[in-house]
Amino acid sequence: MTDSSKDSNSKVVLTGDRPTGPLHLGHFVGSLNNRLKLQETYQQYIMIADAQALTDHAEDPSKVRKNILEVALDYLAVGIKPELSTIFIQSMLPQLFELTAYYLNLVTWNRLKHNPTVKAEILQKGYGESVPAGFMVYPISQAADITAFKASLVPVGEDQLPMIEQTTEIVRKFNRTYNCNVLVEPEAITSAVTRLPGTDGKAKMSKSLNNAVFLSDSEDVVAEKIRKMYTDPNHIRVEDPGTVEGNPVFTYLDAFDTNKESLEAVKEHYRKGGLGDSKVKMRLLDVIQAFLTPIRKKREELSKDPDYVMDIIMKGTEKAYSIAEKTLTEVKEAMGINYHAKNKVNLR
Amino acid sequence: MTDSSKDSNSKVVLTGDRPTGPLHLGHFVGSLNNRLKLQETYQQYIMIADAQALTDHAEDPSKVRKNILEVALDYLAVGIKPELSTIFIQSMLPQLFELTAYYLNLVTWNRLKHNPTVKAEILQKGYGESVPAGFMVYPISQAADITAFKASLVPVGEDQLPMIEQTTEIVRKFNRTYNCNVLVEPEAITSAVTRLPGTDGKAKMSKSLNNAVFLSDSEDVVAEKIRKMYTDPNHIRVEDPGTVEGNPVFTYLDAFDTNKESLEAVKEHYRKGGLGDSKVKMRLLDVIQAFLTPIRKKREELSKDPDYVMDIIMKGTEKAYSIAEKTLTEVKEAMGINYHAKNKVNLR
Repeated sequence: MTDSSKDSNSKVVLTGDRPTGPLHLGHFVGSLNNRLKLQETYQQYIMIADAQALTDHAEDPSKVRKNILEVALDYLAVGIKPELSTIFIQSMLPQLFELTAYYLNLVTWNRLKHNPTVKAEILQKGYGESVPAGFMVYPISQAADITAFKASLVPVGEDQLPMIEQTTEIVRKFNRTYNCNVLVEPEAITSAVTRLPGTDGKAKMSKSLNNAVFLSDSEDVVAEKIRKMYTDPNHIRVEDPGTVEGNPVFTYLDAFDTNKESLEAVKEHYRKGGLGDSKVKMRLLDVIQAFLTPIRKKREELSKDPDYVMDIIMKGTEKAYSIAEKTLTEVKEAMGINYHAKNKVNLR
Repeated sequence: MTDSSKDSNSKVVLTGDRPTGPLHLGHFVGSLNNRLKLQETYQQYIMIADAQALTDHAEDPSKVRKNILEVALDYLAVGIKPELSTIFIQSMLPQLFELTAYYLNLVTWNRLKHNPTVKAEILQKGYGESVPAGFMVYPISQAADITAFKASLVPVGEDQLPMIEQTTEIVRKFNRTYNCNVLVEPEAITSAVTRLPGTDGKAKMSKSLNNAVFLSDSEDVVAEKIRKMYTDPNHIRVEDPGTVEGNPVFTYLDAFDTNKESLEAVKEHYRKGGLGDSKVKMRLLDVIQAFLTPIRKKREELSKDPDYVMDIIMKGTEKAYSIAEKTLTEVKEAMGINYHAKNKVNLR
């Protein structure tokens, strides 16, 4: 694993996913696509955030475990290159838990309670007061993830901006309290790409709603999902004029159809009337199959050699471990609690 | 470091102190005395809880660092034997931070908010809503400490009982959720001994109030502190009758004077009148000096050889590390997240 193709002083990007399911087209449009570009220029660390996933899946760790390999396969299948990006497993870096503990002392309880992202998520999940304490604390654990790698760039959605603000606050408080500049302030990269809706038209894709096209879906499954896709509900007869805006089929086409000129003509036809949904869906199906076929092929190949994939994860995790260890040592030195040096306790 | 003198199946005791100052007579009466007995029968782990001390001393880690060695010297000086008790530094066991993270997912935010011990401490410290998040979370970190060693006995004061209850809840939730019996329910040993008041008569001894007699105080300092000690404020002239109950001088005598018969006669005389405070204080001074002289001597000897003390801490910490590592491995196996085996990632 080497970054020889890039300047080793290039900026560090930290990104990742909670392994609670395989990745879908929404992930590609929202983040994977961006990571393919970022890895060419930056030192990119991609974290499989299993420990974070456990904050709201404590009752079902097997789901998290199972999806680590799935997510890694998705990464490699879409073109994340281990020689350009470091893929690692969060829970295998004990330094992240330790950093979290020290950062928790620098954040007030009150501040933690009022994190807008977490508040919105609690509402969405219907947790109320019975939210797991670990879930409330996860912004601090994210600060540990980001700062461990001294990431200066973090790609996030708009709704995740408060998380980066929390990290920035911790970085400033830490550097000020311990009179150092060990920690690096992160900058959010907010993606301009529209969020891809579910095939049922709902805003959020999810496995349980069965409204997501997964990168690992077979040709037949993709065909079935697109055939059943939600379109303009007022476009009943072929000759009716149809609405393109907010119509998931066209949102998907906008994201994946590279022939923009021809796509504009299709939209015009649809708006005017005389173009049936099934024809537009066939176009989308062709586009999506063309996009997914090489990914699916690569994924199948990789699936046959899980040891190779695990070796990539292992090597990435080892590299990430050594970076996190270096940062933790610097953090403890700055705090003056680095008792352990050269197999001796030094308390003076 | 060996427990050869004890049955290796004997119960495990976990105890310890936050290293925020040297230990005083109150610590001896309240816990050290008890530990001297416990180490003869049980596998005793004594944790220097530096990470816990940081939850409300994040701005001053040097105070915590400095006091680790002081506290260890106090332990050894009073007769804690490294061959019978394992002394270790909390922050040097990364497993404790990781266990804390997993346990946080098993506890609701609401439960955390309503811990009576923490609520009382927040009130006492005047924190209000600006309490550090790490401080709110420390009951969970204590559960990690206790369970890491599978401690079945934990000596605590009455006010700390809710901490043991919180640990018990986590143990039950963990074993039930992951269908195992990896974690051991702790039992509190509440000490029957009265709490020693400050020399000024206040309930709590503290360095900032200068009302504590430290185990490391010189003869002169002890003499001065006892000379100035608060007694019965209504016992003005020698011939006045005096009150023994709640009189700190007598509370100290009750705790340290081994000649109980003679002490009863002194109390009688004091109650009747005709016995001056200075005479009673002289008796107390003799008793305390007799108690502290060998401790002071041993402490001075040990202070001359800090490498020896650090070696004891290092060996204890190494032993504690391996126990905590074993427990963490079992915990991760029970959760099914032990990806790391034999330098390979195993995700199947």
